[in-house]
Amino acid sequence: MVSIITLTTDFGTEDPYVGTMKGVMLGISPAARLVDLTHGVQPQQVLQASFLLSTAYSHFPEGTIHVVVVDPGVGTSRRALAVQAGGYYFVAPDNGLLSHVLFALGLEAEGHPQEPVPSLLRPGMRAVSLTNAKFWRHPVSSTFHGRDIFAPAAGHLSRGVKLEELGTEISSILLYPLARPRVESGAVDGTVVHVDQFGNLVTDIRGTELPAGDVVIHVARRAIAGVSFSYADAERAGHDLVAIVGSAGFLEISAPNASAASRLGIGLGEHVRVVVS
Amino acid sequence: MVSIITLTTDFGTEDPYVGTMKGVMLGISPAARLVDLTHGVQPQQVLQASFLLSTAYSHFPEGTIHVVVVDPGVGTSRRALAVQAGGYYFVAPDNGLLSHVLFALGLEAEGHPQEPVPSLLRPGMRAVSLTNAKFWRHPVSSTFHGRDIFAPAAGHLSRGVKLEELGTEISSILLYPLARPRVESGAVDGTVVHVDQFGNLVTDIRGTELPAGDVVIHVARRAIAGVSFSYADAERAGHDLVAIVGSAGFLEISAPNASAASRLGIGLGEHVRVVVS
Amino acid sequence: MVSIITLTTDFGTEDPYVGTMKGVMLGISPAARLVDLTHGVQPQQVLQASFLLSTAYSHFPEGTIHVVVVDPGVGTSRRALAVQAGGYYFVAPDNGLLSHVLFALGLEAEGHPQEPVPSLLRPGMRAVSLTNAKFWRHPVSSTFHGRDIFAPAAGHLSRGVKLEELGTEISSILLYPLARPRVESGAVDGTVVHVDQFGNLVTDIRGTELPAGDVVIHVARRAIAGVSFSYADAERAGHDLVAIVGSAGFLEISAPNASAASRLGIGLGEHVRVVVS
Repeated sequence: MVSIITLTTDFGTEDPYVGTMKGVMLGISPAARLVDLTHGVQPQQVLQASFLLSTAYSHFPEGTIHVVVVDPGVGTSRRALAVQAGGYYFVAPDNGLLSHVLFALGLEAEGHPQEPVPSLLRPGMRAVSLTNAKFWRHPVSSTFHGRDIFAPAAGHLSRGVKLEELGTEISSILLYPLARPRVESGAVDGTVVHVDQFGNLVTDIRGTELPAGDVVIHVARRAIAGVSFSYADAERAGHDLVAIVGSAGFLEISAPNASAASRLGIGLGEHVRVVVS
Repeated sequence: MVSIITLTTDFGTEDPYVGTMKGVMLGISPAARLVDLTHGVQPQQVLQASFLLSTAYSHFPEGTIHVVVVDPGVGTSRRALAVQAGGYYFVAPDNGLLSHVLFALGLEAEGHPQEPVPSLLRPGMRAVSLTNAKFWRHPVSSTFHGRDIFAPAAGHLSRGVKLEELGTEISSILLYPLARPRVESGAVDGTVVHVDQFGNLVTDIRGTELPAGDVVIHVARRAIAGVSFSYADAERAGHDLVAIVGSAGFLEISAPNASAASRLGIGLGEHVRVVVS
Repeated sequence: MVSIITLTTDFGTEDPYVGTMKGVMLGISPAARLVDLTHGVQPQQVLQASFLLSTAYSHFPEGTIHVVVVDPGVGTSRRALAVQAGGYYFVAPDNGLLSHVLFALGLEAEGHPQEPVPSLLRPGMRAVSLTNAKFWRHPVSSTFHGRDIFAPAAGHLSRGVKLEELGTEISSILLYPLARPRVESGAVDGTVVHVDQFGNLVTDIRGTELPAGDVVIHVARRAIAGVSFSYADAERAGHDLVAIVGSAGFLEISAPNASAASRLGIGLGEHVRVVVS
């Protein structure tokens, strides 16, 4: 078995950190296919990485290994994980990076959303703590487990090493309880959870959660009438803002050929309310 | 047959949009070789993408599939294309993205340069509208045809699906009429068509179109004597600006170890005049 | 034999220069594995590229071909090199780009550190000047030897062409004499040689060169007590600055979850002194 390995980090692309991880992976698994998801996660922003991974992971073939390294706790006793869930592998520090993916796969963490909480895996999900030093690169640095622990784990999984060989099986991992939009009859209250490169404001409101009938979307003291089908339709209609169900299935606020984030002067965490008009 | 697939987009690298397209491609064509040309096209700048593609496409082996997604009309009725020309495949929305490449291959669109016009393909060129839903990813989003239509089309071409299976054959596509430098005896008038990362000002004047003999290049109220062979030669001669025939065969204005665009305070569209001195 | 080829340049990722080099490589060596180290070297900063390469090259499997193109002298008579050393191949202009790698492999250049000096290769190292035009892409531009000379050389090495076929064997290449930290009993004086994306200040002081016992690190009028094991340990202790031995084995000054470079207002070339406390 030789799998695809994807990489998501906050390492940027100015330094050769990502290239170094790829060198380690290819040294272990010469035929592995390596795909970058993004290395532009804001430094130490675990939840941003978690969200971005959740929009992309399921578009890869089954068996793909998704490596995610946003790791403010590197060098401490925080655990390193390999998780099997939904037909994929995930290799990441145990700090909440898999919150959105496992939520999408049915695991809802409970508690206050400020910090990740131990959450029992559901049936069909498996996880190990990467404790088997035989599968580490030595010497292990205290600042770059991406190179010394996570890349080797992914490389070994890719060439057929079994999950349970990589370390001790565990039954719960740390996940952030995710705020969910509040759905009432005739109204949904959600939050901007991502601002993409185009300045589109991605909310946590699924297209399937929108009220039936004509709606108005309230955001930043503006009211947008209706959900459009395409950016260009909205532009032709002369609208400077458009609500649309984006490619990941979530309601987005966009500005045709411009940045909605700049136009509205808002970003992450902003409240969005959808009501029947 | 397994081909190389290149990707050119305005998606940037902060979001996992490009990685998602690669996941879809590898799911369809596991052995495809994926190469990024650039994802730094300015948002919705179709002509910039068209130019950049034209400088790179021919350096790939025959049979390479070039995917270009700069797509302000996504979700509207604009057509999606796969084109076979010059030994390559091109997969892109029908909005003028192939203007420079097909121009280089002998197809000159006619009309005003402000918008793309229907242009008859030349003998040896073939195109289909990607209408065969069997080769789409479902459900098709209204905002991300890169993932749902273009990536699958490239993946299927890569594993040997024939062009005509992907949709309806068409005889003309939309192309921008490209302004050409005006060549008179003893003078050439051209335009800056690209500013690269180093601040080099790339014109549309081919090295082969320069007048014979000693020339002077006029740009932004400056006069540059002669065309240099290398940046370093010009620097040694103490020049702060240099005219040089760049790697794509076009006359460029450069500043040794600096940005000519910044030094001159100019950019896209600037007039450049070459006269015999 | 099919090898991995890595790429390190100052080309950035906005233009398709890097993609073009990859097209040329894959045309020659269709099965080569291509890995980007970084294309974010500051324009013409040979020593920065040299340092970054030295932190990454050894994490790739033996036989990997490292291509490095930061080439202010392109188009002049500066030589183009392929070098075999330490189990790897290096393809680069002869301008000092291999200074840190060959230093790590035991070759110490002598002279003033302002410019590269001819340096005799050590036993076990071999180099050729890439003079065999049969292995160039034609026509050779005067501004993009990355595409026309270095990429083809790497492609041919990758498919098994022997080093000596690519050109004339040479016995010395240009290397920068590298300033080394001054180690006295009880004190080490070093220099900041790299600032990474996180704002970590990487010095040229190896962890193995630190004085035994408790130390104090002096930098930019600040004193940092002791060398920490992890960022998080330092943060828990309430420190706003931390000295740590980084993943490449060098002493680094960091700020937990922030940029030490910004916090101290310093960068490349800054003096760092470690004394026994």
